[in-house]
Amino acid sequence: MIIVMKPEATQDEINHVNERMLGLGFKTNVSKGEVMTVIGAVGDKHLVETESIESMAGVKQILSIREPYKMAGREMRPQDTVIKFANGVSVGGDSDFVIMAGPCSIEADPNLLFQIADTVKKGGAQFLRGGAFKPRTSPYDFQGLEEQGLKHMAEARERTGLLIITEVMDSVEAPMVAEYSDVLQVGARNMQNFKLLKAVGKLNKPVMLKRGLSATVREFLLAAEHILYQGNEQVMLCERGIRTFDSTFTRNVLDLAVVPVLKRLSHLPVIVDPSHATGHRYLIAPMANATVMSGAHGLMVEVHPDPDKALSDGAQSLMLDQYLAMMANLKKVVAFQKELTMPECLAKA
Amino acid sequence: MIIVMKPEATQDEINHVNERMLGLGFKTNVSKGEVMTVIGAVGDKHLVETESIESMAGVKQILSIREPYKMAGREMRPQDTVIKFANGVSVGGDSDFVIMAGPCSIEADPNLLFQIADTVKKGGAQFLRGGAFKPRTSPYDFQGLEEQGLKHMAEARERTGLLIITEVMDSVEAPMVAEYSDVLQVGARNMQNFKLLKAVGKLNKPVMLKRGLSATVREFLLAAEHILYQGNEQVMLCERGIRTFDSTFTRNVLDLAVVPVLKRLSHLPVIVDPSHATGHRYLIAPMANATVMSGAHGLMVEVHPDPDKALSDGAQSLMLDQYLAMMANLKKVVAFQKELTMPECLAKA
Amino acid sequence: MIIVMKPEATQDEINHVNERMLGLGFKTNVSKGEVMTVIGAVGDKHLVETESIESMAGVKQILSIREPYKMAGREMRPQDTVIKFANGVSVGGDSDFVIMAGPCSIEADPNLLFQIADTVKKGGAQFLRGGAFKPRTSPYDFQGLEEQGLKHMAEARERTGLLIITEVMDSVEAPMVAEYSDVLQVGARNMQNFKLLKAVGKLNKPVMLKRGLSATVREFLLAAEHILYQGNEQVMLCERGIRTFDSTFTRNVLDLAVVPVLKRLSHLPVIVDPSHATGHRYLIAPMANATVMSGAHGLMVEVHPDPDKALSDGAQSLMLDQYLAMMANLKKVVAFQKELTMPECLAKA
Amino acid sequence: MIIVMKPEATQDEINHVNERMLGLGFKTNVSKGEVMTVIGAVGDKHLVETESIESMAGVKQILSIREPYKMAGREMRPQDTVIKFANGVSVGGDSDFVIMAGPCSIEADPNLLFQIADTVKKGGAQFLRGGAFKPRTSPYDFQGLEEQGLKHMAEARERTGLLIITEVMDSVEAPMVAEYSDVLQVGARNMQNFKLLKAVGKLNKPVMLKRGLSATVREFLLAAEHILYQGNEQVMLCERGIRTFDSTFTRNVLDLAVVPVLKRLSHLPVIVDPSHATGHRYLIAPMANATVMSGAHGLMVEVHPDPDKALSDGAQSLMLDQYLAMMANLKKVVAFQKELTMPECLAKA
Repeated sequence: MIIVMKPEATQDEINHVNERMLGLGFKTNVSKGEVMTVIGAVGDKHLVETESIESMAGVKQILSIREPYKMAGREMRPQDTVIKFANGVSVGGDSDFVIMAGPCSIEADPNLLFQIADTVKKGGAQFLRGGAFKPRTSPYDFQGLEEQGLKHMAEARERTGLLIITEVMDSVEAPMVAEYSDVLQVGARNMQNFKLLKAVGKLNKPVMLKRGLSATVREFLLAAEHILYQGNEQVMLCERGIRTFDSTFTRNVLDLAVVPVLKRLSHLPVIVDPSHATGHRYLIAPMANATVMSGAHGLMVEVHPDPDKALSDGAQSLMLDQYLAMMANLKKVVAFQKELTMPECLAKA
Repeated sequence: MIIVMKPEATQDEINHVNERMLGLGFKTNVSKGEVMTVIGAVGDKHLVETESIESMAGVKQILSIREPYKMAGREMRPQDTVIKFANGVSVGGDSDFVIMAGPCSIEADPNLLFQIADTVKKGGAQFLRGGAFKPRTSPYDFQGLEEQGLKHMAEARERTGLLIITEVMDSVEAPMVAEYSDVLQVGARNMQNFKLLKAVGKLNKPVMLKRGLSATVREFLLAAEHILYQGNEQVMLCERGIRTFDSTFTRNVLDLAVVPVLKRLSHLPVIVDPSHATGHRYLIAPMANATVMSGAHGLMVEVHPDPDKALSDGAQSLMLDQYLAMMANLKKVVAFQKELTMPECLAKA
Repeated sequence: MIIVMKPEATQDEINHVNERMLGLGFKTNVSKGEVMTVIGAVGDKHLVETESIESMAGVKQILSIREPYKMAGREMRPQDTVIKFANGVSVGGDSDFVIMAGPCSIEADPNLLFQIADTVKKGGAQFLRGGAFKPRTSPYDFQGLEEQGLKHMAEARERTGLLIITEVMDSVEAPMVAEYSDVLQVGARNMQNFKLLKAVGKLNKPVMLKRGLSATVREFLLAAEHILYQGNEQVMLCERGIRTFDSTFTRNVLDLAVVPVLKRLSHLPVIVDPSHATGHRYLIAPMANATVMSGAHGLMVEVHPDPDKALSDGAQSLMLDQYLAMMANLKKVVAFQKELTMPECLAKA
Repeated sequence: MIIVMKPEATQDEINHVNERMLGLGFKTNVSKGEVMTVIGAVGDKHLVETESIESMAGVKQILSIREPYKMAGREMRPQDTVIKFANGVSVGGDSDFVIMAGPCSIEADPNLLFQIADTVKKGGAQFLRGGAFKPRTSPYDFQGLEEQGLKHMAEARERTGLLIITEVMDSVEAPMVAEYSDVLQVGARNMQNFKLLKAVGKLNKPVMLKRGLSATVREFLLAAEHILYQGNEQVMLCERGIRTFDSTFTRNVLDLAVVPVLKRLSHLPVIVDPSHATGHRYLIAPMANATVMSGAHGLMVEVHPDPDKALSDGAQSLMLDQYLAMMANLKKVVAFQKELTMPECLAKA
């Protein structure tokens, strides 16, 4: 439920209501707006008599939440979530557009990773991506270097100062992966692995949740809700292409309109991964540029110096010169987009 | 088949080969490049002995075409198709980005159309769209003003100088609709109405072919091929969203990556319609901006002064002030995109 | 709207109300049940004051129809539609299960068709299928024998007594095709060719409407509604597989549950075509048997003596011995299913 | 690779080759046919010189496997897998058709479960289904009784002698769930939870793997391959409906043709779950009957005495009288289908 406080409510009154709700077993979120304060409260509404809350000092009104994604939705928390990292980088809201780049898989030779990391850094990215645990359709494909790969990633961070984002595939391994990384990635095939969502929801580490191959927007936000519900509020959403009837020329279909849709429904940051969405490197640059114009908060791309020899996803990885060329352009697009004011009338639904 | 002429081949030799192919019942297309000339020839290859052509003066080599869309594909015709209109407007290749805007349906009161047309013109569009024949899922919905609507459109053209694009739904009506319009639109539901494709293929009038709701890229290009095969080479392709598993927050899914895919495979101009693709007006402006960055040749949007009262597609029509605000921004995006050079390495597949 | 007459209403009262509605421009359908009579009326409800009808003698109650498919739905017409042919064959309701079989395309040599027709007859089918007008994805594929093919079909009917079902692709050709055939087929790609639906709706000839590749149930019934609305009440629905994300091992996905869904929503007969749905002949027999158990009214299959040489759809055509073997089994399944009583409780929703 | 032994090869020669392959780190499967023996061997083919095997005594020929699902496919293991339970029940091959029935979720009151179990038993099922760990789209929905629910299930087995099948959602919990159950179910949303597949692959307990909502046949078999690869050969496949563009009248689309497709490609038993596939109880009985005719090895259905009060999936649960009525019919269909011989020609592809 949403408890709207009166404009003249005092801080004491606000605290009092908040504590009452916490005492009733609710999770709360206090949003101070310019005019008034709103307390979002999620829990079992059968445990509380609405009237008894409504009669508390400072309370103006109680609204029930109709969105099924109570914590991920804007109804209860209108302001954008901004995720802040120790090195000053932030994601979401009005933060600068971020870039996550790197190889699909971390391979045995760490020098290959370091070479990529240097280029990723040089191009202007903030995050190094790379998979140590690889979800692979076939058991006969390369399954990842596991913890050894994470150690290479940590060393690459040491060398470059890049933040590390890497995939976690299982609830048991989550704490270990969290030790090495700055962002935990939950992959598309695990979007509804609810035990994993619960596990990363209990960690104090940002999570990037990728949209499932055929996940509806509602299911996507409810998967994020599973994480938020456990107490971890640092969640980013990542559109990475959906499965449709045609995969001849693109691996999946990039659903770019979902960016403004998600931003309207939710306060969480939205990242776009055109590498997995399209599956072909010649499509990355135009879709990266389009991503910026869609209003996304960041971009994730795959980069590899010799994609034909990559252990996974070679066809969709940018070569190093392509990555640098794309980044040079992208910076201009980001700067241009920042200057472009969108008149308010355009947001009318 | 593709007949590659020697760099030193004379014009007479080229003509000779071309006439020989025409004489054998082939349709040909002569492309003069900077270094050499290539003759594309479509027809029954059983009727010709390849060796007898290969031995003609000036012929370097004969290649067979592997693309099923022989005339729509780039293999036989590498240069972009540019469609030119009497008033100097052109579409495709390096032409300026074009805008097609107007109401979904033409309604009974012509003054409403004229009001929209004036705004459409003022915003900077080149084409007025509007449907007189409406394909409607239910027989109980408004089916269109038919020829009366076309007369209103012609009058709007008279007043504003805008070019007219309107839908044709049936092979019999095609010649009549062609008399009133500058571009014939074939709708998504008729993309594989092969009799209609054949009919518009026989007219000397540009055609905009909309992608079917679940048409693959290959089917889309082959539908265009049906038109080209009849002799009409002025075909534009229009992405308008595809049907997927989720239509809760967007009517369809805009497949923006299909723009660079189509441009790679085909020489035909590519237009994007974010109104039908998204179904919600708040999504039009960000998707229009993204469309420009995807490399499309133009945009089609729906506009209505009072969308709630529109006879069809109200929720996705821009209000007049929204249209003007979107256009003001779009002009900046178009100018920006024109200046943005895409290094050649980005096109590597 | 639905006008429910009192149980004691006289025939005169019923006629009176019916004529009043017809006079107001409505289309009506009078259903006499065991207890009471119901008059379904479709038209512009703004033209009539409900109260003035409700006060007429014999009228018990007026209900508004909530189904968008007013004439195709069961609300207004609860009894099954049964389509009767001159030779005593009937389709729908409790009629015997029917079989439609034959080649995909009619080919140049009529003797091939006659050979197939003889086998089709021998196996026990009631209808000979065969396409003279072929909707083909590519203009380079065989487009059909056109009227010559229809003449072959008519001759095959002469020889075998089989009823003829063949596809019509264009509104102009509909009357001509109707002259040669017993049932007009509207193909999946033309399911929303509304001009064609209108044209066949004006003919006095049964129509089999195939479900579009990605048509929802609602769209399917509304397409049928377009035909019914023009006055042709002899419509059959045909499920022929839908397009999904996987076409590696089956061409489409046979949606067999749509049979009981359609039978619940609509009174129209439902036919299933496993040939187009699966695309592989080894799947036809098990799916034909399953079709009978789903409650469908009939089956359409493709048959060809030498499928590898068929001009279209070879892989999904049964060979002659396969067809006869399938039919021998199918007769047993049909007989078994007829004896199987489905207790009423199973229909509870 | 597949090692085909000569018809005259001795048992010693066969053993010798088999041991050689095992020594090279391959997993092998020895199939003795009536005429000759075939040894399937899965492993890293770079580790072995084919010629050195081919020259061993008794070896006729070495074939490479082209199917990506080496262990799940029929190429290497042509005979049907039959899973046998202690109480004499078996699944797959020519075993009797099996029924798995029970509530979606196990609820707090064990007597409710016992009531259902008694009815399930009375109707003739061999397995009791019921979820203790529930994968739920929203964190606000009932998440299951967890281990307490498993204890109720074990008690129900005690009372009725039914075998227990229940879902496992996480790799860590797999051994615990295996202690209480006879079959471990991996749910659709976890079909590509590769850590879970690996975990159940290491247990000595039959697994039923449900097809993901948008999993291709190839992905489905490769998911099974992950389990087989770990050494657990007791895997059943379960079709439970796929996600398409329409979910108005059915929750998913039941892909019944996948049954003969899977049986052709794989030796694993195939079960069908029409409850999740259709989502509506009035569709269960016709689809159950159709399932038998499709050639499936078994059926899974949901049953609840008071579906409106069920904590999950009420709309698709059969009421107790419906279940008994369905089972009475189903027995007849199973008996009929068993008598129906399918002539060999029908299997021709």
